Amino acid sequence: MIDFEALFKVSYGLYIVCSGDKIKGNGFISNSIFQVTAEPPQFAACCNKNNYTAEFIKKHQAFSISVLSQETPSDIIGRFGYKSGRDTNKLKGLDINYGETGVPIVMNESVATMECKLVQTSDVGTHLIFIGELIQAEIIDENRDPLTYAYYRQIRKGIAPKNAPTYVDKSKLLKKKDFLK
Amino acid sequence: MIDFEALFKVSYGLYIVCSGDKIKGNGFISNSIFQVTAEPPQFAACCNKNNYTAEFIKKHQAFSISVLSQETPSDIIGRFGYKSGRDTNKLKGLDINYGETGVPIVMNESVATMECKLVQTSDVGTHLIFIGELIQAEIIDENRDPLTYAYYRQIRKGIAPKNAPTYVDKSKLLKKKDFLK
Repeated sequence: MIDFEALFKVSYGLYIVCSGDKIKGNGFISNSIFQVTAEPPQFAACCNKNNYTAEFIKKHQAFSISVLSQETPSDIIGRFGYKSGRDTNKLKGLDINYGETGVPIVMNESVATMECKLVQTSDVGTHLIFIGELIQAEIIDENRDPLTYAYYRQIRKGIAPKNAPTYVDKSKLLKKKDFLK
Repeated sequence: MIDFEALFKVSYGLYIVCSGDKIKGNGFISNSIFQVTAEPPQFAACCNKNNYTAEFIKKHQAFSISVLSQETPSDIIGRFGYKSGRDTNKLKGLDINYGETGVPIVMNESVATMECKLVQTSDVGTHLIFIGELIQAEIIDENRDPLTYAYYRQIRKGIAPKNAPTYVDKSKLLKKKDFLK
């Protein structure tokens, strides 16, 4: 039996992953960023195949990661997590730096930022795992704590967007509770 | 420039990943467990190629994940994180369940446990990313918080083992500080 509540015991941070260039870029909220090797430092970013940002990462062969602070306002999370860049320019009006590869890096609410060159892509079904070699990493604000998915769920009462790898259809949790009755 | 301190802003949990059977099994401490798809639920586990457990996962085509509690004693972390199962039976004397696939699941200090059938393996250099489809998940202790890597580092003053994807050679951090002088 799968108790989907158990899946919430896995720990994640929350990030904005971006790609593109100065003319056109896009980003999405990710909770599945993780270092996969130390030598050389490589990071994995899991991305729904339907995410607009996936097209930019494939085209530009690079991506940036902004580690969000615990105080990240809901409008930033809403803009990157619950809207599509096909309908709106998500980067408009934000504080954007551009990396060595030219990808946009969202600086608003960033505790730290990283930039990766794409070296490999794994197809895992609905999602792609982009593996990138780290070429740049910087602490932006030493005094703020990173936002974790647990904090976002428990304290901020946020839920995962539908394209997130950790999305849980509420009916599954209800079924679970019915099962326990 | 890469500031390796920035990498510590990425959030992780801490887990014991196991494989094998009733006759012989092994496990290691992992911080890189993450869900990669929701439909079907699949998890990725990043594992150093030299880890003894990698051999068991390849042979048995399955692995278990135990989500460790914040109170996990250092001897459990030491046993699974800093020793090799080639020299010692890491599972000896522990409270072990066996999953549907037969893999051992460490119950001591577990907040939740999961079992995955291996469906895909990606080679990312020094490490393998094992992708497993979730076949079983259970909450073991609802009242304890999962141990996070941040808590382990900041409160418990722990460091990543040498085979961990997040291992940072201290000289790199020192070089960084020298650079700032």
